[in-house]
Amino acid sequence: MASSTQGQVITCKAAVAWEANKPLTIEDVQVAPPQDGEVRVKILFTALCHTDHYTWSGKDPEGLFPCILGHEAAGIVESVGEGVTEVQPGDHVIPCYQAECRECKFCKSGKTNLCGKVRAATGVGVMMNDRKSRFSINGKPIYHFMGTSTFSQYTVVHDVSVAKINPRAPLEKVCLLGCGVSTGLGAVWNTAKVEAGSIVAVFGLGTVGLAVAEGAKSAGASRIIGIDIDSKKFDVAKSFGVTEFVNPKDHDKPIQQVIVDLTDGGVDYSFECIGNVSVMRAALECCHKGWGTSVIVGVAASGQEISTRPFQLVTGRVWKGTAFGGFKSRTQVPWLVEKYLNKEIKVDEYVTHSMNLSDINKAFDLLHEGGCLRCVLATEK
Amino acid sequence: MASSTQGQVITCKAAVAWEANKPLTIEDVQVAPPQDGEVRVKILFTALCHTDHYTWSGKDPEGLFPCILGHEAAGIVESVGEGVTEVQPGDHVIPCYQAECRECKFCKSGKTNLCGKVRAATGVGVMMNDRKSRFSINGKPIYHFMGTSTFSQYTVVHDVSVAKINPRAPLEKVCLLGCGVSTGLGAVWNTAKVEAGSIVAVFGLGTVGLAVAEGAKSAGASRIIGIDIDSKKFDVAKSFGVTEFVNPKDHDKPIQQVIVDLTDGGVDYSFECIGNVSVMRAALECCHKGWGTSVIVGVAASGQEISTRPFQLVTGRVWKGTAFGGFKSRTQVPWLVEKYLNKEIKVDEYVTHSMNLSDINKAFDLLHEGGCLRCVLATEK
Repeated sequence: MASSTQGQVITCKAAVAWEANKPLTIEDVQVAPPQDGEVRVKILFTALCHTDHYTWSGKDPEGLFPCILGHEAAGIVESVGEGVTEVQPGDHVIPCYQAECRECKFCKSGKTNLCGKVRAATGVGVMMNDRKSRFSINGKPIYHFMGTSTFSQYTVVHDVSVAKINPRAPLEKVCLLGCGVSTGLGAVWNTAKVEAGSIVAVFGLGTVGLAVAEGAKSAGASRIIGIDIDSKKFDVAKSFGVTEFVNPKDHDKPIQQVIVDLTDGGVDYSFECIGNVSVMRAALECCHKGWGTSVIVGVAASGQEISTRPFQLVTGRVWKGTAFGGFKSRTQVPWLVEKYLNKEIKVDEYVTHSMNLSDINKAFDLLHEGGCLRCVLATEK
Repeated sequence: MASSTQGQVITCKAAVAWEANKPLTIEDVQVAPPQDGEVRVKILFTALCHTDHYTWSGKDPEGLFPCILGHEAAGIVESVGEGVTEVQPGDHVIPCYQAECRECKFCKSGKTNLCGKVRAATGVGVMMNDRKSRFSINGKPIYHFMGTSTFSQYTVVHDVSVAKINPRAPLEKVCLLGCGVSTGLGAVWNTAKVEAGSIVAVFGLGTVGLAVAEGAKSAGASRIIGIDIDSKKFDVAKSFGVTEFVNPKDHDKPIQQVIVDLTDGGVDYSFECIGNVSVMRAALECCHKGWGTSVIVGVAASGQEISTRPFQLVTGRVWKGTAFGGFKSRTQVPWLVEKYLNKEIKVDEYVTHSMNLSDINKAFDLLHEGGCLRCVLATEK
């Protein structure tokens, strides 16, 4: 299926971040055709995630401006460059900020999902082939972001960074599988490997934390303790599997001590889903001596460090982290979509707001409101 | 086999630490008979380990004086208290500072060797039964240490803290299996589970570090990189399996960067065998992205903390620790003794010095000399 735009520059709407901490503006952007090993995707729906906000805020020292943010989205392949064999125009896809080439040392190790093939380019806002951007406005280049740049009606991604999914899946929902929901589920299933009967603590009950709770429930955890400073989140959290709620503000003791006391010595698994280094320490220290494992899921601000006494580890606790929940993106995102279609995992329930791309600044504001999990933007308007 | 001393107080020689950082003195000590669940052991040989020195130095805030130090030893059961079924007078044994009761939450978990049964007593220098010491000098109690107190011709231990071993084993050698050698081997086999072909880094080439190297060699590691600030250690280290040697003093770059550069991205497993929190950080950060695992084996001074950027863990490194190498003491120390008798593990090679108990202060001084691995004291004199 050849599209009429194949090989042509497409001019479309995109939300451009011209500089840190300034409102995005909707611009007419020129999107160049895909080169060798690249795929141009018509983005239909994109959600917002805290990493978009972090870079936008200027706190990310690797953030480059002007750029097109966005990394949690779904769309349809418009055209493909030379040598692209695994997707073709018309395929429904989810762009994946974590690539999977199946050829590099990382992909072949069998031990990690952290493919390294295109990182050297995506880390600096360009494409591998010519180390340039495919986005421009009147000839001025606009940087890519995370190899995805989904706040645009069209984007160009590497072929190793796009997962072909079942076309029956509603794109306005499964776009969430491009980041937050997958990350939470995978942290439990792949990184921690929670067993039936385990006691689990989840720090932070946003989208990722709720997906951790859901993953833990499906793994058969016997107790799932949700920790958040906003008690209003408990009602929603229950429906995702949280069985008990602790608000650190209700206690004088350090939160790790509160959790240890609640659980006769500590939890089997804990998950930090906020990105706060003090909470990361608490999450480790609330684990049971001898075997408790803590997984860092949240992304801390640049330069911040975690600390603890080495005795915590010598007495058997394990400190790990996860990126995209350990999922191999091109292989496993389609599998997650099937699980959603089979009603084995929730997705709809995370979508609390829907807007148009032109409302993106309002959507950014919503990210920091307690009642918002995910705001999905339709790019048509 | 009833001994003539059974049920009697035994007066014998012991090295007593009267206060921190003062030379030990050889005293006539009264050793009370074992109570319910206790075992009195005639110690024949005891080695010295850095943990003895740490408590003796006064840096251990939990150190209690006066006390009888020592925890790496071998001897023969003299008599047993009521209810003791698994050892009897005449059995050859190794006292184990890490107990194994086979009944507590920890022992039954299948996930850890950190038995908790007698810790409440051994942590404060007394026996569980009456929360008192079995050692005294003219009626003045002398504290136990680590539940072992092996710098004495006789000691009393809990029955869960003594491993019965093959009487064919030379006690002047296998006493080392009570701590350092077992810890190093177990860190590799039980905690890290090093696989064949792995690249391993060992920080610190004392007894524990050399045992890590030996364990890694037997696990089939392809490269074993030894790191130490004393280049004289390399020749000996080679015979334990170290294949490459790096002296941080020979480099301007941080040692973690030196190791990453040497290994095309980092090692698969690293082991900190010093107890230095800066080295613990380096050991983590020299691990390969995606899967590298670092194990803390050394014991840091009280109050010190480890730190790193959380990004190190989010990108797939794992931070763990080990105590007694994860070995279940009563079950596995006898198995290690068999491996030694079958020439599957080294022990003799770690014994660089032999002295008498009366030379113990000289032996303490030797601990800090590069050429000393283990000094074994005969308690007869």
